Amino acid sequence: MNCNTPTDICFSFAGFQQRGGATSVHADGWGIAFFEGVGARVFLDPQPSFRSPVAELVRNYPIRSKNVIAHIRKATHGRIALENTHPFMRELWGRYWIFAHNGAVPGFGQVNHDAPAFCATTEAAAQVFNDGSGPQPVGDTDSEAVFCWLLRQLRQRFGATPPARDELFSTLHELTLKVGASGEFNYLLSNGDWLFAHCSRKLAFVVRKAPFAVAHLADEDVSVDFAELTTPSDRVAVIATTPLTDNEEWTTMPPGSLWLFEEGVPVAQAPTVPAPPRKEETGSAAVASAA
Amino acid sequence: MNCNTPTDICFSFAGFQQRGGATSVHADGWGIAFFEGVGARVFLDPQPSFRSPVAELVRNYPIRSKNVIAHIRKATHGRIALENTHPFMRELWGRYWIFAHNGAVPGFGQVNHDAPAFCATTEAAAQVFNDGSGPQPVGDTDSEAVFCWLLRQLRQRFGATPPARDELFSTLHELTLKVGASGEFNYLLSNGDWLFAHCSRKLAFVVRKAPFAVAHLADEDVSVDFAELTTPSDRVAVIATTPLTDNEEWTTMPPGSLWLFEEGVPVAQAPTVPAPPRKEETGSAAVASAA
Repeated sequence: MNCNTPTDICFSFAGFQQRGGATSVHADGWGIAFFEGVGARVFLDPQPSFRSPVAELVRNYPIRSKNVIAHIRKATHGRIALENTHPFMRELWGRYWIFAHNGAVPGFGQVNHDAPAFCATTEAAAQVFNDGSGPQPVGDTDSEAVFCWLLRQLRQRFGATPPARDELFSTLHELTLKVGASGEFNYLLSNGDWLFAHCSRKLAFVVRKAPFAVAHLADEDVSVDFAELTTPSDRVAVIATTPLTDNEEWTTMPPGSLWLFEEGVPVAQAPTVPAPPRKEETGSAAVASAA
Repeated sequence: MNCNTPTDICFSFAGFQQRGGATSVHADGWGIAFFEGVGARVFLDPQPSFRSPVAELVRNYPIRSKNVIAHIRKATHGRIALENTHPFMRELWGRYWIFAHNGAVPGFGQVNHDAPAFCATTEAAAQVFNDGSGPQPVGDTDSEAVFCWLLRQLRQRFGATPPARDELFSTLHELTLKVGASGEFNYLLSNGDWLFAHCSRKLAFVVRKAPFAVAHLADEDVSVDFAELTTPSDRVAVIATTPLTDNEEWTTMPPGSLWLFEEGVPVAQAPTVPAPPRKEETGSAAVASAA
Protein backbone atom coordinates (compact mmCIF):
# COMPACT_ATOMS: atom_id res chain seq x y z
CA MET A 1 0.00 0.00 0.00
CA ASN A 2 1.18 3.50 -0.82
CA CYS A 3 -0.87 6.56 0.06
CA ASN A 4 -0.87 10.29 0.65
CA THR A 5 -2.16 10.18 4.19
CA PRO A 6 -1.40 7.71 6.98
CA THR A 7 -3.89 4.92 6.39
CA ASP A 8 -4.67 1.72 8.24
CA ILE A 9 -4.62 -1.50 6.26
CA CYS A 10 -7.01 -3.51 8.45
CA PHE A 11 -9.58 -4.14 5.69
CA SER A 12 -7.11 -5.17 3.00
CA PHE A 13 -5.15 -7.22 5.50
CA ALA A 14 -8.24 -9.22 6.44
CA GLY A 15 -8.41 -10.60 2.91
CA PHE A 16 -4.66 -10.94 2.57
CA GLN A 17 -4.47 -12.91 5.81
CA GLN A 18 -6.77 -15.61 4.41
CA ARG A 19 -4.35 -16.29 1.58
CA GLY A 20 -1.75 -17.43 4.08
CA GLY A 21 -2.96 -20.97 4.36
CA ALA A 22 -6.75 -20.66 4.09
CA THR A 23 -7.70 -19.51 0.56
CA SER A 24 -4.19 -19.95 -0.88
CA VAL A 25 -1.15 -22.20 -0.43
CA HIS A 26 1.21 -19.54 0.94
CA ALA A 27 1.41 -21.06 4.42
CA ASP A 28 5.15 -20.92 5.13
CA GLY A 29 5.23 -17.73 7.18
CA TRP A 30 4.24 -14.17 6.59
CA GLY A 31 5.24 -10.64 7.48
CA ILE A 32 4.22 -7.01 7.20
CA ALA A 33 6.22 -3.80 7.44
CA PHE A 34 4.79 -0.39 8.28
CA PHE A 35 6.63 2.85 7.69
CA GLU A 36 5.71 5.62 10.10
CA GLY A 37 7.73 8.62 8.96
CA VAL A 38 11.29 7.38 8.62
CA GLY A 39 10.68 4.71 11.25
CA ALA A 40 9.65 1.20 10.30
CA ARG A 41 8.23 -1.73 12.18
CA VAL A 42 8.16 -5.23 10.84
CA PHE A 43 5.89 -7.95 12.19
CA LEU A 44 7.05 -11.43 11.23
CA ASP A 45 5.68 -14.86 11.97
CA PRO A 46 6.88 -18.17 10.55
CA GLN A 47 3.33 -19.50 11.18
CA PRO A 48 0.65 -19.34 8.46
CA SER A 49 -1.04 -15.93 8.61
CA PHE A 50 -4.58 -17.34 8.71
CA ARG A 51 -3.93 -18.68 12.22
CA SER A 52 -1.11 -16.40 13.41
CA PRO A 53 -1.58 -14.46 16.68
CA VAL A 54 0.57 -11.69 15.20
CA ALA A 55 -1.77 -11.49 12.21
CA GLU A 56 -4.73 -11.13 14.56
CA LEU A 57 -2.97 -8.18 16.15
CA VAL A 58 -2.27 -6.55 12.80
CA ARG A 59 -5.84 -7.12 11.67
CA ASN A 60 -7.28 -5.41 14.75
CA TYR A 61 -4.69 -2.75 15.60
CA PRO A 62 -5.08 0.17 13.16
CA ILE A 63 -1.48 1.21 12.50
CA ARG A 64 -1.53 4.21 10.16
CA SER A 65 1.14 4.27 7.53
CA LYS A 66 1.83 5.79 4.12
CA ASN A 67 3.81 2.76 2.96
CA VAL A 68 3.11 -0.85 3.89
CA ILE A 69 4.63 -4.02 2.43
CA ALA A 70 3.19 -7.42 3.35
CA HIS A 71 4.15 -10.90 2.17
CA ILE A 72 2.89 -14.44 2.58
CA ARG A 73 5.40 -17.11 1.80
CA LYS A 74 5.38 -20.38 -0.09
CA ALA A 75 8.87 -21.67 0.59
CA THR A 76 10.78 -22.50 -2.59
CA HIS A 77 14.38 -21.64 -1.76
CA GLY A 78 15.28 -21.70 1.90
CA ARG A 79 13.58 -23.60 4.71
CA ILE A 80 10.66 -22.30 6.79
CA ALA A 81 12.39 -20.17 9.38
CA LEU A 82 12.17 -16.69 10.83
CA GLU A 83 15.32 -15.55 9.02
CA ASN A 84 13.74 -16.54 5.69
CA THR A 85 10.46 -14.73 6.34
CA HIS A 86 9.72 -11.68 4.17
CA PRO A 87 9.72 -8.71 4.17
CA PHE A 88 13.42 -8.09 4.76
CA MET A 89 14.81 -4.86 6.16
CA ARG A 90 18.17 -3.14 5.83
CA GLU A 91 19.36 0.40 6.42
CA LEU A 92 21.05 2.43 3.67
CA TRP A 93 21.83 6.15 3.66
CA GLY A 94 20.24 6.52 7.08
CA ARG A 95 16.88 5.19 5.88
CA TYR A 96 15.25 1.80 6.25
CA TRP A 97 14.54 -0.18 3.10
CA ILE A 98 11.92 -2.92 3.04
CA PHE A 99 11.76 -5.64 0.40
CA ALA A 100 9.45 -8.54 -0.42
CA HIS A 101 9.77 -10.89 -3.38
CA ASN A 102 7.58 -13.39 -5.14
CA GLY A 103 9.24 -15.79 -7.56
CA ALA A 104 12.69 -17.32 -7.86
CA VAL A 105 15.92 -15.74 -9.04
CA PRO A 106 18.54 -18.35 -9.86
CA GLY A 107 22.02 -17.07 -9.22
CA PHE A 108 21.07 -15.39 -5.99
CA GLY A 109 20.61 -18.57 -4.06
CA GLN A 110 23.08 -19.47 -1.37
CA VAL A 111 25.83 -22.04 -1.65
CA ASN A 112 23.49 -24.98 -2.21
CA HIS A 113 21.57 -23.33 -4.99
CA ASP A 114 21.13 -25.41 -8.14
CA ALA A 115 21.49 -22.85 -10.87
CA PRO A 116 23.89 -20.05 -10.02
CA ALA A 117 23.47 -18.36 -13.37
CA PHE A 118 24.23 -14.90 -12.09
CA CYS A 119 27.39 -15.98 -10.36
CA ALA A 120 29.28 -18.60 -12.34
CA THR A 121 30.14 -20.67 -9.26
CA THR A 122 28.89 -21.02 -5.73
CA GLU A 123 32.21 -19.58 -4.55
CA ALA A 124 31.59 -16.53 -6.69
CA ALA A 125 28.14 -16.20 -5.18
CA ALA A 126 29.61 -16.31 -1.69
CA GLN A 127 32.23 -13.72 -2.60
CA VAL A 128 29.56 -11.27 -3.66
CA PHE A 129 28.60 -10.83 -0.04
CA ASN A 130 31.38 -12.09 2.17
CA ASP A 131 33.65 -9.06 1.94
CA GLY A 132 32.41 -7.69 5.25
CA SER A 133 31.11 -4.50 3.71
CA GLY A 134 27.54 -3.77 2.77
CA PRO A 135 24.36 -5.72 3.33
CA GLN A 136 24.78 -9.49 3.55
CA PRO A 137 22.07 -12.15 3.75
CA VAL A 138 21.29 -13.72 7.13
CA GLY A 139 19.02 -16.50 5.87
CA ASP A 140 19.32 -18.70 2.82
CA THR A 141 16.68 -17.38 0.43
CA ASP A 142 17.42 -16.08 -3.04
CA SER A 143 15.07 -13.21 -2.15
CA GLU A 144 17.14 -11.80 0.70
CA ALA A 145 20.30 -12.28 -1.36
CA VAL A 146 18.97 -10.31 -4.31
CA PHE A 147 17.75 -7.57 -1.96
CA CYS A 148 21.23 -7.25 -0.45
CA TRP A 149 22.72 -7.24 -3.95
CA LEU A 150 20.38 -4.43 -5.05
CA LEU A 151 21.34 -2.26 -2.08
CA ARG A 152 25.04 -2.93 -2.63
CA GLN A 153 24.70 -1.95 -6.27
CA LEU A 154 22.96 1.27 -5.29
CA ARG A 155 25.62 2.12 -2.78
CA GLN A 156 28.41 1.37 -5.21
CA ARG A 157 26.81 3.61 -7.80
CA PHE A 158 25.88 6.54 -5.63
CA GLY A 159 28.36 6.38 -2.76
CA ALA A 160 27.50 8.60 0.17
CA THR A 161 24.81 10.61 -1.59
CA PRO A 162 21.42 9.01 -2.13
CA PRO A 163 20.08 9.63 -5.64
CA ALA A 164 17.00 11.70 -6.43
CA ARG A 165 13.79 9.82 -7.05
CA ASP A 166 13.92 9.56 -10.83
CA GLU A 167 17.59 8.62 -10.92
CA LEU A 168 16.89 5.89 -8.37
CA PHE A 169 13.99 4.66 -10.48
CA SER A 170 16.02 4.40 -13.67
CA THR A 171 18.90 2.68 -11.86
CA LEU A 172 16.53 0.21 -10.24
CA HIS A 173 15.01 -0.44 -13.63
CA GLU A 174 18.42 -1.26 -15.09
CA LEU A 175 19.24 -3.58 -12.18
CA THR A 176 15.81 -5.16 -12.30
CA LEU A 177 16.16 -5.98 -15.99
CA LYS A 178 19.42 -7.74 -15.21
CA VAL A 179 17.90 -9.89 -12.49
CA GLY A 180 14.55 -10.34 -14.20
CA ALA A 181 16.22 -11.77 -17.31
CA SER A 182 17.19 -14.85 -15.32
CA GLY A 183 14.21 -15.46 -13.07
CA GLU A 184 10.80 -14.49 -11.79
CA PHE A 185 11.26 -11.27 -9.94
CA ASN A 186 7.98 -9.80 -8.75
CA TYR A 187 8.98 -7.47 -5.94
CA LEU A 188 7.98 -4.56 -3.73
CA LEU A 189 10.58 -2.17 -2.35
CA SER A 190 10.11 0.95 -0.24
CA ASN A 191 12.16 3.43 1.78
CA GLY A 192 9.07 5.04 3.31
CA ASP A 193 8.83 7.78 0.66
CA TRP A 194 8.47 5.71 -2.48
CA LEU A 195 7.16 2.28 -3.28
CA PHE A 196 8.68 0.43 -6.23
CA ALA A 197 6.75 -2.49 -7.66
CA HIS A 198 8.09 -4.82 -10.31
CA CYS A 199 5.85 -7.22 -12.19
CA SER A 200 7.70 -10.16 -13.67
CA ARG A 201 4.58 -12.12 -14.33
CA LYS A 202 1.70 -11.15 -12.05
CA LEU A 203 0.90 -7.95 -10.19
CA ALA A 204 -2.11 -5.65 -10.12
CA PHE A 205 -3.10 -2.42 -8.41
CA VAL A 206 -6.08 -0.26 -7.59
CA VAL A 207 -6.02 3.43 -6.67
CA ARG A 208 -8.79 4.50 -4.33
CA LYS A 209 -9.70 8.17 -4.39
CA ALA A 210 -12.82 10.32 -4.15
CA PRO A 211 -15.61 9.52 -4.71
CA PHE A 212 -14.98 6.55 -2.43
CA ALA A 213 -17.30 3.57 -2.54
CA VAL A 214 -17.98 0.22 -0.91
CA ALA A 215 -15.31 -2.41 -1.46
CA HIS A 216 -15.85 -6.12 -0.99
CA LEU A 217 -13.07 -8.61 -0.28
CA ALA A 218 -12.46 -11.46 -2.70
CA ASP A 219 -11.25 -13.87 -0.01
CA GLU A 220 -13.81 -13.28 2.70
CA ASP A 221 -17.36 -11.92 2.82
CA VAL A 222 -16.39 -8.56 4.26
CA SER A 223 -17.23 -5.12 2.90
CA VAL A 224 -16.19 -1.64 3.89
CA ASP A 225 -17.58 1.73 2.86
CA PHE A 226 -14.47 3.83 2.33
CA ALA A 227 -16.61 6.97 2.04
CA GLU A 228 -17.14 6.71 5.79
CA LEU A 229 -13.44 6.30 6.60
CA THR A 230 -11.73 8.76 4.33
CA THR A 231 -11.53 12.43 3.44
CA PRO A 232 -11.99 13.67 -0.16
CA SER A 233 -8.29 14.32 -0.67
CA ASP A 234 -7.18 10.81 0.38
CA ARG A 235 -5.52 8.69 -2.22
CA VAL A 236 -4.55 5.09 -1.58
CA ALA A 237 -2.84 2.68 -3.96
CA VAL A 238 -3.03 -1.02 -3.14
CA ILE A 239 -0.81 -3.41 -5.09
CA ALA A 240 -1.23 -7.18 -4.90
CA THR A 241 -0.35 -10.32 -6.84
CA THR A 242 -4.06 -10.88 -7.45
CA PRO A 243 -6.81 -8.34 -6.68
CA LEU A 244 -7.91 -8.28 -3.05
CA THR A 245 -11.43 -7.06 -3.86
CA ASP A 246 -13.99 -8.32 -6.37
CA ASN A 247 -15.92 -5.12 -7.07
CA GLU A 248 -13.19 -2.59 -7.89
CA GLU A 249 -11.27 -1.82 -11.08
CA TRP A 250 -7.82 -3.33 -10.68
CA THR A 251 -5.13 -2.52 -13.27
CA THR A 252 -3.08 -5.52 -14.33
CA MET A 253 0.58 -4.57 -14.66
CA PRO A 254 2.25 -5.69 -17.88
CA PRO A 255 4.91 -8.38 -17.36
CA GLY A 256 8.33 -6.78 -17.18
CA SER A 257 7.15 -3.41 -15.95
CA LEU A 258 8.57 -1.48 -13.02
CA TRP A 259 6.30 1.02 -11.29
CA LEU A 260 6.93 3.80 -8.84
CA PHE A 261 4.19 4.89 -6.45
CA GLU A 262 4.32 8.09 -4.44
CA GLU A 263 1.53 9.63 -2.38
CA GLY A 264 -0.93 7.07 -3.74
CA VAL A 265 -0.14 7.81 -7.38
CA PRO A 266 1.71 5.65 -9.93
CA VAL A 267 4.14 8.42 -10.91
CA ALA A 268 6.49 6.43 -13.13
CA GLN A 269 6.40 3.25 -15.16
CA ALA A 270 9.07 1.52 -17.19
CA PRO A 271 9.39 0.42 -19.87
CA THR A 272 6.10 -0.07 -21.68
CA VAL A 273 3.79 2.92 -21.18
CA PRO A 274 4.46 6.63 -20.70
CA ALA A 275 4.08 7.54 -17.05
CA PRO A 276 0.75 9.10 -16.11
CA PRO A 277 0.93 12.75 -15.07
CA ARG A 278 1.74 13.46 -11.45
CA LYS A 279 -1.26 14.42 -9.40
CA GLU A 280 -1.81 18.15 -8.88
CA GLU A 281 -2.71 18.51 -5.24
CA THR A 282 -0.27 17.82 -2.42
CA GLY A 283 -1.05 15.37 0.36
CA SER A 284 -3.66 16.18 2.98
CA ALA A 285 -2.91 16.50 6.68
CA ALA A 286 -2.49 13.31 8.64
CA VAL A 287 -6.04 12.22 9.35
CA ALA A 288 -7.37 8.72 9.69
CA SER A 289 -7.83 6.76 6.50
CA ALA A 290 -8.33 3.10 5.76
CA ALA A 291 -7.60 0.54 3.08
CA MET B 1 17.26 -12.74 28.74
CA ASN B 2 19.92 -15.22 27.72
CA CYS B 3 19.38 -18.96 28.09
CA ASN B 4 20.47 -22.40 27.00
CA THR B 5 17.08 -23.54 25.71
CA PRO B 6 14.42 -21.56 23.84
CA THR B 7 12.41 -19.96 26.61
CA ASP B 8 9.33 -17.77 26.64
CA ILE B 9 9.56 -14.48 28.48
CA CYS B 10 5.84 -14.06 29.27
CA PHE B 11 6.28 -14.00 33.07
CA SER B 12 9.17 -11.54 33.15
CA PHE B 13 7.54 -9.42 30.48
CA ALA B 14 4.39 -9.03 32.59
CA GLY B 15 6.37 -7.18 35.23
CA PHE B 16 8.50 -5.31 32.70
CA GLN B 17 5.38 -4.12 30.87
CA GLN B 18 4.12 -2.34 34.01
CA ARG B 19 7.25 -0.20 34.13
CA GLY B 20 6.33 1.36 30.82
CA GLY B 21 4.04 4.02 32.24
CA ALA B 22 2.35 2.25 35.17
CA THR B 23 4.92 1.52 37.91
CA SER B 24 7.69 3.62 36.31
CA VAL B 25 8.08 6.75 34.18
CA HIS B 26 9.39 5.05 31.03
CA ALA B 27 6.29 5.83 28.96
CA ASP B 28 7.81 7.04 25.68
CA GLY B 29 7.61 3.83 23.70
CA TRP B 30 8.94 0.35 24.12
CA GLY B 31 10.23 -2.57 22.13
CA ILE B 32 11.36 -6.18 22.35
CA ALA B 33 13.53 -8.29 20.09
CA PHE B 34 13.51 -12.09 19.95
CA PHE B 35 16.22 -14.13 18.31
CA GLU B 36 15.06 -17.45 16.92
CA GLY B 37 18.18 -19.10 15.57
CA VAL B 38 19.85 -16.50 13.36
CA GLY B 39 16.48 -14.87 12.67
CA ALA B 40 15.24 -11.96 14.73
CA ARG B 41 11.91 -10.28 15.17
CA VAL B 42 11.46 -6.92 16.75
CA PHE B 43 8.15 -5.65 18.10
CA LEU B 44 8.08 -1.88 18.54
CA ASP B 45 5.42 0.51 19.76
CA PRO B 46 5.79 4.23 20.41
CA GLN B 47 2.90 3.86 22.92
CA PRO B 48 3.56 3.16 26.62
CA SER B 49 3.92 -0.58 27.12
CA PHE B 50 1.39 -0.76 29.96
CA ARG B 51 -1.42 0.00 27.48
CA SER B 52 0.12 -1.14 24.20
CA PRO B 53 -1.79 -3.69 22.08
CA VAL B 54 1.57 -5.01 20.89
CA ALA B 55 2.64 -5.55 24.50
CA GLU B 56 -0.55 -7.51 25.13
CA LEU B 57 0.38 -9.77 22.23
CA VAL B 58 3.92 -10.29 23.54
CA ARG B 59 2.63 -11.00 27.03
CA ASN B 60 0.25 -13.69 25.80
CA TYR B 61 2.07 -15.21 22.82
CA PRO B 62 4.83 -17.49 24.09
CA ILE B 63 7.66 -16.85 21.63
CA ARG B 64 10.57 -19.12 22.58
CA SER B 65 13.98 -17.58 22.25
CA LYS B 66 17.50 -17.99 23.63
CA ASN B 67 18.21 -14.26 23.47
CA VAL B 68 15.70 -11.49 24.10
CA ILE B 69 16.31 -7.76 24.51
CA ALA B 70 13.50 -5.46 25.67
CA HIS B 71 13.50 -1.74 26.38
CA ILE B 72 11.10 0.84 27.74
CA ARG B 73 11.94 4.41 26.90
CA LYS B 74 12.03 7.67 28.76
CA ALA B 75 12.86 10.10 25.95
CA THR B 76 15.94 12.21 26.73
CA HIS B 77 17.59 12.75 23.35
CA GLY B 78 15.30 12.46 20.35
CA ARG B 79 11.54 12.90 20.19
CA ILE B 80 8.95 10.19 20.79
CA ALA B 81 8.80 8.45 17.43
CA LEU B 82 9.02 4.98 16.00
CA GLU B 83 12.50 5.58 14.58
CA ASN B 84 13.74 6.46 18.07
CA THR B 85 12.23 3.41 19.75
CA HIS B 86 14.66 0.79 21.09
CA PRO B 87 15.86 -1.86 20.51
CA PHE B 88 17.63 -1.05 17.26
CA MET B 89 18.64 -3.65 14.70
CA ARG B 90 21.37 -3.78 12.08
CA GLU B 91 22.99 -6.60 10.13
CA LEU B 92 26.75 -7.18 10.22
CA TRP B 93 28.66 -10.21 8.91
CA GLY B 94 25.41 -11.83 7.87
CA ARG B 95 23.98 -11.76 11.40
CA TYR B 96 21.47 -9.46 13.02
CA TRP B 97 22.65 -7.35 15.96
CA ILE B 98 20.19 -5.93 18.46
CA PHE B 99 20.99 -3.05 20.79
CA ALA B 100 19.20 -1.22 23.61
CA HIS B 101 20.63 1.60 25.72
CA ASN B 102 19.76 3.30 28.98
CA GLY B 103 21.48 6.58 29.74
CA ALA B 104 22.94 9.39 27.65
CA VAL B 105 26.17 9.50 25.68
CA PRO B 106 27.11 13.07 24.77
CA GLY B 107 29.01 13.21 21.53
CA PHE B 108 26.78 10.68 19.84
CA GLY B 109 23.81 12.96 19.54
CA GLN B 110 22.78 14.15 16.14
CA VAL B 111 23.43 17.61 14.74
CA ASN B 112 21.37 19.42 17.36
CA HIS B 113 23.04 17.77 20.27
CA ASP B 114 24.31 20.08 23.02
CA ALA B 115 27.54 18.45 24.03
CA PRO B 116 29.33 16.75 21.16
CA ALA B 117 32.29 15.74 23.31
CA PHE B 118 33.16 12.70 21.27
CA CYS B 119 33.17 14.58 18.00
CA ALA B 120 34.56 18.08 18.37
CA THR B 121 31.92 19.65 16.13
CA THR B 122 28.49 18.77 14.87
CA GLU B 123 29.98 18.58 11.38
CA ALA B 124 32.46 16.02 12.65
CA ALA B 125 29.62 14.04 14.19
CA ALA B 126 27.78 14.03 10.89
CA GLN B 127 30.90 12.95 9.02
CA VAL B 128 31.25 9.90 11.22
CA PHE B 129 28.23 8.42 9.53
CA ASN B 130 27.55 10.22 6.29
CA ASP B 131 30.15 8.49 4.17
CA GLY B 132 27.57 6.12 2.72
CA SER B 133 29.33 3.03 4.05
CA GLY B 134 28.40 1.16 7.17
CA PRO B 135 25.51 1.50 9.56
CA GLN B 136 24.05 4.99 9.84
CA PRO B 137 21.39 6.27 12.25
CA VAL B 138 17.83 6.70 10.98
CA GLY B 139 16.43 8.53 14.01
CA ASP B 140 17.98 11.21 16.17
CA THR B 141 18.88 9.43 19.40
CA ASP B 142 22.39 9.24 20.81
CA SER B 143 21.62 5.55 21.44
CA GLU B 144 21.16 4.57 17.80
CA ALA B 145 24.19 6.67 16.86
CA VAL B 146 26.47 4.94 19.34
CA PHE B 147 25.17 1.53 18.22
CA CYS B 148 26.03 2.36 14.60
CA TRP B 149 29.43 3.62 15.71
CA LEU B 150 30.14 0.39 17.62
CA LEU B 151 29.29 -1.75 14.59
CA ARG B 152 31.41 0.44 12.31
CA GLN B 153 34.32 0.13 14.70
CA LEU B 154 33.96 -3.64 14.76
CA ARG B 155 33.84 -3.83 11.00
CA GLN B 156 36.85 -1.57 10.62
CA ARG B 157 38.84 -3.70 13.02
CA PHE B 158 37.88 -7.12 11.77
CA GLY B 159 37.00 -6.53 8.11
CA ALA B 160 35.26 -9.45 6.46
CA THR B 161 35.94 -11.99 9.19
CA PRO B 162 33.90 -11.80 12.38
CA PRO B 163 36.05 -12.23 15.50
CA ALA B 164 35.81 -15.13 17.90
CA ARG B 165 33.81 -14.61 21.06
CA ASP B 166 36.60 -13.61 23.41
CA GLU B 167 38.23 -11.27 20.92
CA LEU B 168 34.88 -9.61 20.35
CA PHE B 169 34.40 -9.25 24.09
CA SER B 170 37.76 -7.59 24.66
CA THR B 171 37.26 -5.25 21.69
CA LEU B 172 33.81 -4.30 22.92
CA HIS B 173 35.27 -3.66 26.33
CA GLU B 174 37.83 -1.29 24.88
CA LEU B 175 35.17 0.56 22.85
CA THR B 176 32.79 0.63 25.81
CA LEU B 177 35.40 2.22 28.03
CA LYS B 178 35.86 4.94 25.47
CA VAL B 179 32.14 5.73 25.28
CA GLY B 180 31.45 5.14 28.95
CA ALA B 181 34.07 7.70 29.96
CA SER B 182 31.88 10.46 28.58
CA GLY B 183 28.36 9.38 29.48
CA GLU B 184 26.00 6.88 31.02
CA PHE B 185 26.16 3.82 28.87
CA ASN B 186 24.11 0.94 30.26
CA TYR B 187 23.48 -1.29 27.28
CA LEU B 188 22.47 -4.72 26.05
CA LEU B 189 23.79 -6.09 22.76
CA SER B 190 23.21 -9.48 21.16
CA ASN B 191 23.80 -11.28 17.89
CA GLY B 192 21.66 -14.26 18.89
CA ASP B 193 24.59 -16.29 20.22
CA TRP B 194 25.94 -13.97 22.89
CA LEU B 195 24.44 -11.26 25.04
CA PHE B 196 26.71 -8.43 26.15
CA ALA B 197 25.57 -6.30 29.09
CA HIS B 198 27.33 -3.16 30.22
CA CYS B 199 26.56 -1.54 33.55
CA SER B 200 27.46 2.13 33.69
CA ARG B 201 25.50 2.75 36.83
CA LYS B 202 22.67 0.27 37.33
CA LEU B 203 22.14 -3.26 36.11
CA ALA B 204 21.39 -6.54 37.86
CA PHE B 205 20.91 -10.16 36.87
CA VAL B 206 19.59 -13.45 38.17
CA VAL B 207 20.41 -16.91 36.83
CA ARG B 208 17.61 -19.42 37.19
CA LYS B 209 18.63 -23.08 37.22
CA ALA B 210 17.67 -26.29 38.96
CA PRO B 211 16.31 -26.58 41.57
CA PHE B 212 13.73 -24.14 40.21
CA ALA B 213 11.39 -22.36 42.59
CA VAL B 214 8.46 -19.97 42.70
CA ALA B 215 9.24 -16.43 41.58
CA HIS B 216 7.11 -13.41 42.39
CA LEU B 217 7.06 -10.21 40.35
CA ALA B 218 8.06 -6.94 41.99
CA ASP B 219 5.72 -4.83 39.83
CA GLU B 220 2.58 -6.93 39.89
CA ASP B 221 1.15 -9.58 42.20
CA VAL B 222 1.94 -12.49 39.91
CA SER B 223 3.89 -15.62 40.75
CA VAL B 224 5.10 -18.53 38.67
CA ASP B 225 6.48 -21.90 39.71
CA PHE B 226 9.37 -22.42 37.32
CA ALA B 227 9.71 -26.02 38.50
CA GLU B 228 6.53 -26.75 36.54
CA LEU B 229 7.73 -25.07 33.36
CA THR B 230 11.33 -26.13 33.05
CA THR B 231 13.57 -29.16 32.76
CA PRO B 232 16.50 -29.73 35.15
CA SER B 233 19.10 -28.72 32.59
CA ASP B 234 17.48 -25.35 31.78
CA ARG B 235 19.48 -22.29 32.60
CA VAL B 236 18.06 -18.80 32.16
CA ALA B 237 19.78 -15.49 32.86
CA VAL B 238 17.58 -12.42 33.20
CA ILE B 239 19.25 -9.01 33.24
CA ALA B 240 17.38 -5.83 34.18
CA THR B 241 18.03 -2.28 35.37
CA THR B 242 16.29 -3.16 38.64
CA PRO B 243 15.28 -6.68 39.70
CA LEU B 244 12.01 -7.89 38.21
CA THR B 245 11.23 -10.24 41.10
CA ASP B 246 11.24 -9.63 44.85
CA ASN B 247 12.01 -13.13 46.13
CA GLU B 248 15.08 -14.14 44.11
CA GLU B 249 18.80 -13.46 44.55
CA TRP B 250 19.73 -10.80 42.02
CA THR B 251 23.39 -9.93 41.50
CA THR B 252 24.08 -6.22 41.24
CA MET B 253 26.65 -5.54 38.56
CA PRO B 254 29.50 -3.24 39.57
CA PRO B 255 29.45 0.12 37.78
CA GLY B 256 31.77 0.07 34.80
CA SER B 257 31.59 -3.68 34.25
CA LEU B 258 30.94 -5.42 30.94
CA TRP B 259 29.44 -8.92 31.05
CA LEU B 260 29.08 -11.63 28.47
CA PHE B 261 26.26 -14.17 28.79
CA GLU B 262 26.12 -17.37 26.80
CA GLU B 263 23.72 -20.28 27.26
CA GLY B 264 22.39 -18.71 30.45
CA VAL B 265 25.82 -18.32 32.04
CA PRO B 266 27.85 -15.15 32.71
CA VAL B 267 30.98 -16.47 30.98
CA ALA B 268 33.10 -13.32 31.03
CA GLN B 269 33.28 -10.11 33.01
CA ALA B 270 35.52 -7.09 32.66
CA PRO B 271 37.23 -5.44 34.36
CA THR B 272 36.59 -5.94 38.05
CA VAL B 273 36.18 -9.61 38.89
CA PRO B 274 37.67 -12.78 37.39
CA ALA B 275 35.14 -14.46 35.15
CA PRO B 276 33.28 -17.36 36.74
CA PRO B 277 34.10 -20.76 35.27
CA ARG B 278 32.15 -21.81 32.20
CA LYS B 279 29.41 -24.26 32.91
CA GLU B 280 30.23 -27.90 32.28
CA GLU B 281 27.17 -29.29 30.56
CA THR B 282 26.11 -28.22 27.09
CA GLY B 283 22.61 -26.96 26.31
CA SER B 284 19.63 -29.28 26.46
CA ALA B 285 17.40 -30.02 23.52
CA ALA B 286 14.87 -27.39 22.56
CA VAL B 287 12.01 -27.95 24.97
CA ALA B 288 9.66 -25.38 26.41
CA SER B 289 11.00 -23.19 29.15
CA ALA B 290 9.80 -19.96 30.69
CA ALA B 291 11.13 -16.82 32.34
